Amino acid sequence: MKLTILKDHLNESIQHVSKAISNRTTIPILSGIKIDADANGMTLTASDTDISIQSYIPVEKNDMNIIQLDRPGSVVLSSKFFVEIIRKLPAAQVEIEVKDHFHTTIRSGSSEIQLVGLDPEEYPTLPSIEENRKIQLPSDVLKTMIKQTSFAVSTNESTPILTGVLWTIQDGILKFTACDRHRLGSRETQIEVDGGFQLSNISISGKTLNELAKILPDQNALIEVVFADNQVLFKLSSILFYTRILDGTYPDTSKLIPQSYQTEMVVNAQQLADAIDRAYLLSKEEKTNIVKLIMREDQTIEISSSSSELGKVTEQLDVSRLSGELLRISFNSKYMLDALKVIDSEFIHIGFTGAMQPIIIRPEESSNLLQLILPYRTTN
Amino acid sequence: MKLTILKDHLNESIQHVSKAISNRTTIPILSGIKIDADANGMTLTASDTDISIQSYIPVEKNDMNIIQLDRPGSVVLSSKFFVEIIRKLPAAQVEIEVKDHFHTTIRSGSSEIQLVGLDPEEYPTLPSIEENRKIQLPSDVLKTMIKQTSFAVSTNESTPILTGVLWTIQDGILKFTACDRHRLGSRETQIEVDGGFQLSNISISGKTLNELAKILPDQNALIEVVFADNQVLFKLSSILFYTRILDGTYPDTSKLIPQSYQTEMVVNAQQLADAIDRAYLLSKEEKTNIVKLIMREDQTIEISSSSSELGKVTEQLDVSRLSGELLRISFNSKYMLDALKVIDSEFIHIGFTGAMQPIIIRPEESSNLLQLILPYRTTN
Repeated sequence: MKLTILKDHLNESIQHVSKAISNRTTIPILSGIKIDADANGMTLTASDTDISIQSYIPVEKNDMNIIQLDRPGSVVLSSKFFVEIIRKLPAAQVEIEVKDHFHTTIRSGSSEIQLVGLDPEEYPTLPSIEENRKIQLPSDVLKTMIKQTSFAVSTNESTPILTGVLWTIQDGILKFTACDRHRLGSRETQIEVDGGFQLSNISISGKTLNELAKILPDQNALIEVVFADNQVLFKLSSILFYTRILDGTYPDTSKLIPQSYQTEMVVNAQQLADAIDRAYLLSKEEKTNIVKLIMREDQTIEISSSSSELGKVTEQLDVSRLSGELLRISFNSKYMLDALKVIDSEFIHIGFTGAMQPIIIRPEESSNLLQLILPYRTTN
Repeated sequence: MKLTILKDHLNESIQHVSKAISNRTTIPILSGIKIDADANGMTLTASDTDISIQSYIPVEKNDMNIIQLDRPGSVVLSSKFFVEIIRKLPAAQVEIEVKDHFHTTIRSGSSEIQLVGLDPEEYPTLPSIEENRKIQLPSDVLKTMIKQTSFAVSTNESTPILTGVLWTIQDGILKFTACDRHRLGSRETQIEVDGGFQLSNISISGKTLNELAKILPDQNALIEVVFADNQVLFKLSSILFYTRILDGTYPDTSKLIPQSYQTEMVVNAQQLADAIDRAYLLSKEEKTNIVKLIMREDQTIEISSSSSELGKVTEQLDVSRLSGELLRISFNSKYMLDALKVIDSEFIHIGFTGAMQPIIIRPEESSNLLQLILPYRTTN
């Protein structure tokens, strides 16, 4: 293999695929990036077996010549050092030449770098995926849906299925659900699919989805998502992102969500978040994060937290609507702040069905987003 | 004590003094901030016994009323939580009221915070310092001198004196020296003092000077520095910063610096730094940071590093002047990068007196800054 490539294009591709490289891999060749070059362009591949990312650089794009190919070929280069050095090369052009035994020389300006390459034949092949079952959705919608749910996945590896975000499709509605047994985040969106297209029990690691979100373009590009037996493939314009589906059966969370409320409240989202944030500051010193909410007849609420050692925070807040039974309820303030952070709405609706029942938080004007927090049992 | 104060002024003072608070203090009251209020203004004090910082907020400044005093008094408030909550209070004004048993109430908008205060009588008094021996120097000069030397102090606590920056004054020249046995940084500046004013063996913790640098104003304000028997006091416009002088005798480093060179080189600072940075990237994977410099007859140098596992980086560089014996010399590339980073000059002068002798780096046009690096002994 011998070619010259524009540094910025090479660097961008390396940054994308390197997200799939784990520092803790037990398969030495997976600490490398596989490079394949032919007359059409260059393909970079990285994988940690859970995630695989492939990035494609065409020889030409928008009438600009990106790659000058002298000799096609393949090599695997250790990602350590390689990822960093390409970014810091002195010239706009980078020459890569692979010789016998995969000895690789990289030249740019007055820099010459020799790398010990590995045999690309030893690199595992990516799964071949049948493209029968696929959907399309806008990049920004996918990004937002990930942000609004992935924070609520479980971090407890003893129930792996809950470390994922559940994807379901029914009646043309794509729904994400994440639940760690203490809270739940869910978000729906309408998609264009054949009426009969259904999806259930597809759980994808929250961590992986966050990595995907980092390389999803901000522009409103359409992302194709292909569902295979145990893999999901995300197709971006020049990137293929493979991830495996988590094993197990995702529990039915629908029964957690009450159908009607005993108490309903509409409140300014920012004011509530600021008040809870101050109470949280004290509660976190107690390592409990417990904050108490007391509802009053005069359409105000009191939010408070206390620490035996440090003192007490008390916040008074006007609400714009409060109806039903007046409650005293305690909850994890960090969970509430996480939930409020992803609701992009001036006013939010909070529904209660008792001091020991789930708290349901939604944007006031929309029903496509729902956050649930289980309250704490406290003595007063 | 009872007063109302503008939040931003209170917050700024808290941020300044909180730099003196250690999380590991064994004296409980030192985890707090002492607040004293009288008819003139409010004084905040924090200390970890090594550093003490006092910040003063006047009742009025530039015709603006900052503090409304109802009742003078003092209290010590735990810095944990207090430092964070003040910044997040909802209103522009903050009311602080201290009642019996130092129970303190802070009110701002609809927030009320109750804090368990401590008795200010138990707070240690700051050292009283005689102002006989003092100098003045511009804030930006002091900041730059700290930046140009403090990175070279030793981090080895077994020789505490070397963890400090040595201050000397002789013939109207203030000099900072830092040395960790492998490298040395020094910087001089002329100051206005009586001809006979001398200073020797004043070593001030590099860490402390970096904390000081963070609160030194960028504007060209004059900072007064007062030297007492075992304390140094920095007087900023509204801040007093006390630190202790390190015990011990600072070693004589003057003999390390050669009086003449066998080899001299002038080179573009940025080009050299970039080339060494690329070689450093590889050398750090070997955990040695060793980079080799080879001088050539044709006024070029080669900079290289190699890793048995990964490969080799080779950089060619034109130098603008190279005279004397052509050397091959190895050194710690991280130390060289640290030294180059603080030399604000387009071209630098590097002097050598042999492959096993100190490397001396200076700005080309100035002699007030000197960086020294000891070379590595390598076999080739």
